[in-house]
Amino acid sequence: MTDAHMLHSAGAAGLAALYRDGTTDPVAVTRLYLDRIAALDGRVRAYTQVLAEPALAAAAASAARWAAGRPLSAMDGVPIAVKANIAIGGAFWHAGIGAYRDRVAVTDADCVARLRAAGAIILGTVNMHEGALGATTDNVWFGRTENPLKAGYTAGGSSGGSAAAVAAGLAAAALGSDTMGSVRIPSAYCGLAGYKPARRAISLEGVIPLSTTLDHVGVHGHSVADCALVATHAGAGPVEPVASLAGLTLAVPDWRARVEAPAPIWAARDNAAAALLDLGMVSSDADMQSYQPGQARRMGLLVSEVEGLNAHAAQLAESEEGFSAGFLSLLRWGGKQPATRVAAAYQGLDEIKLGGLAWLDRVDAVLLPTAPQTAFPFTDPVPANQADFTALADFIGCPAIAVPAGLSPEGLPLSVQVIGRDAAIVLAVAAALE
Amino acid sequence: MTDAHMLHSAGAAGLAALYRDGTTDPVAVTRLYLDRIAALDGRVRAYTQVLAEPALAAAAASAARWAAGRPLSAMDGVPIAVKANIAIGGAFWHAGIGAYRDRVAVTDADCVARLRAAGAIILGTVNMHEGALGATTDNVWFGRTENPLKAGYTAGGSSGGSAAAVAAGLAAAALGSDTMGSVRIPSAYCGLAGYKPARRAISLEGVIPLSTTLDHVGVHGHSVADCALVATHAGAGPVEPVASLAGLTLAVPDWRARVEAPAPIWAARDNAAAALLDLGMVSSDADMQSYQPGQARRMGLLVSEVEGLNAHAAQLAESEEGFSAGFLSLLRWGGKQPATRVAAAYQGLDEIKLGGLAWLDRVDAVLLPTAPQTAFPFTDPVPANQADFTALADFIGCPAIAVPAGLSPEGLPLSVQVIGRDAAIVLAVAAALE
Repeated sequence: MTDAHMLHSAGAAGLAALYRDGTTDPVAVTRLYLDRIAALDGRVRAYTQVLAEPALAAAAASAARWAAGRPLSAMDGVPIAVKANIAIGGAFWHAGIGAYRDRVAVTDADCVARLRAAGAIILGTVNMHEGALGATTDNVWFGRTENPLKAGYTAGGSSGGSAAAVAAGLAAAALGSDTMGSVRIPSAYCGLAGYKPARRAISLEGVIPLSTTLDHVGVHGHSVADCALVATHAGAGPVEPVASLAGLTLAVPDWRARVEAPAPIWAARDNAAAALLDLGMVSSDADMQSYQPGQARRMGLLVSEVEGLNAHAAQLAESEEGFSAGFLSLLRWGGKQPATRVAAAYQGLDEIKLGGLAWLDRVDAVLLPTAPQTAFPFTDPVPANQADFTALADFIGCPAIAVPAGLSPEGLPLSVQVIGRDAAIVLAVAAALE
Repeated sequence: MTDAHMLHSAGAAGLAALYRDGTTDPVAVTRLYLDRIAALDGRVRAYTQVLAEPALAAAAASAARWAAGRPLSAMDGVPIAVKANIAIGGAFWHAGIGAYRDRVAVTDADCVARLRAAGAIILGTVNMHEGALGATTDNVWFGRTENPLKAGYTAGGSSGGSAAAVAAGLAAAALGSDTMGSVRIPSAYCGLAGYKPARRAISLEGVIPLSTTLDHVGVHGHSVADCALVATHAGAGPVEPVASLAGLTLAVPDWRARVEAPAPIWAARDNAAAALLDLGMVSSDADMQSYQPGQARRMGLLVSEVEGLNAHAAQLAESEEGFSAGFLSLLRWGGKQPATRVAAAYQGLDEIKLGGLAWLDRVDAVLLPTAPQTAFPFTDPVPANQADFTALADFIGCPAIAVPAGLSPEGLPLSVQVIGRDAAIVLAVAAALE
């Protein structure tokens, strides 16, 4: 019997074994996901378009390959969801922006084409914060995606639909995009792993940009292994497993004075650090003293806003219809800034990148909280500092992954984030925390 | 006898052998350079400040070290000139800008301090194009530096004083800076080697910026070995020698449709390529198809202008006095551009960097002309495309070196440029062309 519990236990990375030994097959699994979407997504509102028929056709082809003992890869028959800024040929491709709601992608994004060639089943597109510029996925055009773990709470953003779909068991994994934390923050709020490989390790071809200089494609999954599997086949390529963490250095920087976060956030990080040191990692006091998260965030936001305005300039020249007032005001604000301030933001981010790379040359991995808070109710004000732990890895362009780290006193997921230069080490450290 | 001919034959890299065997000593050599400056610089106008007494004191100390058999390095006792945007403690530090003409640097720039610690003799500061934004070194505040090879002709720029000083035998080598070609272009016009190591391989600390995202410190010398010696001790560190060029790949891209240059410019490049293939290098047709030098130049100039305005904002807030109308108009033009255009320039340069790195991953070295023309008279209009071959390596941030490649029909130096990811290979290929 193919049930949700089996799928949750297997994860994306475990499906291949079930297909190989005939426990289940891609058609049964795809049907189950489609049934769950039909039953549950009215409440979660993760999907903006479900591609049931093409998914079932792809599943049948995958099932035939498995039956013949010739799967295309370990991804063959794994059903995934795709953020609405990433093109699926023949599907709506709108980045959560009303103006593009009727636009249909002609061809797959590079990462989708690669996953499809590896046998992945594309279940459909999922909701996102409008234009990827924000972290609540409370979208005026496509609805408010709920956190599957707590009604009335945000799933985070901008890849909120991706995280909610996976957390609710409506996809085995999902593609997202991360400009200052948009994969890792919703993964943290929904109790998932969220992985952003190095910059351009997964191509941006076929991804509606927010910021071409900061955007990264990433993956949401139930485990590090699930994320790594999807990232590998989306274009990042395989990483060599790390035999042991013993002797690798770990920085656990004390940023309490730089980012305001409640005690359980820091405790989760400190507990995770202790666990890694128990595994033989060596504590390093290397820090990036010059990094001021709040100042850096403002520079990253300005760059995102002005580049976002460039991304949508052609559409906006025709009409402002289909852009929410809030989204438009951010883009327009960026566009009104003086040249010198814009340049200063690029100059500042460039120095951050150089400083960050120098830091990561001195230490194998850095452990930080993923977000300064847990998921919050839609009725609460949106915290300004949501991306203050995550944006650095986008500025540097290095691999970063968020993994669950227990529950807050209110029962909401806590999360820690591993950053480093070497994807293999980052993934291995994160896996050790599971 | 210590004469100019001996020094020219030895080059910066050959002085150590002469000091070691007692043929000459740092005091005699420094005196000779000071005498030549006194005799010839009235015509060349390379120097803006000669530090005769400190240089002689440093030379005496160096001579004592050599006599005791304890030189600090192979740079000990090598007299060099320093571009006027690079700080020499106690000397005027003005970047060729009138507003700063009375400013005295408190401490050495990082690169100068390193060279001094290696025993180098600092002869003085040399002229430059105002603010490093231009390539003629026809400076309204500090005079017009002449090309030592032909009166009335530019030495190029912005490091025109650096190149002229070395070409006229007024220093063994010189530090310059290169934002879109400012080391390599004047080296080409003056018949020298000009080397720009990888971005930040030599620190920018103590260098008055034009563009923090594009500026590179570089070296002018009579030979590749001279440049490598100075770069090594200025902070770039040593490179492993390359045993043989055989089997290394060389791209010789046909950019005739992209950059307008007279036939002898291309012939010099093609002849140099043939020589390298004769040495066993393997021709590669790898090209960077997407690179449009003219468009890229405009983006690089805009970034330089806006960042230059940021660099001088504090001074300009007080007074515009001491900034020439031409320089100011470039900075102000940059500052008036809309945010979106500025961002688009950064976005474009970022894609160029990514594309360039991908290109250089496919080929060991690229051979291009250094400049689309030879030195030209001050009375000629300034060609717009002077940096169209050089700017790419600044955008990429990779090592690049210009080396002489014969004479034009008019008897002026031709030059070719080697670009690549690996400094050792770039230097070895350039050395093979000497």
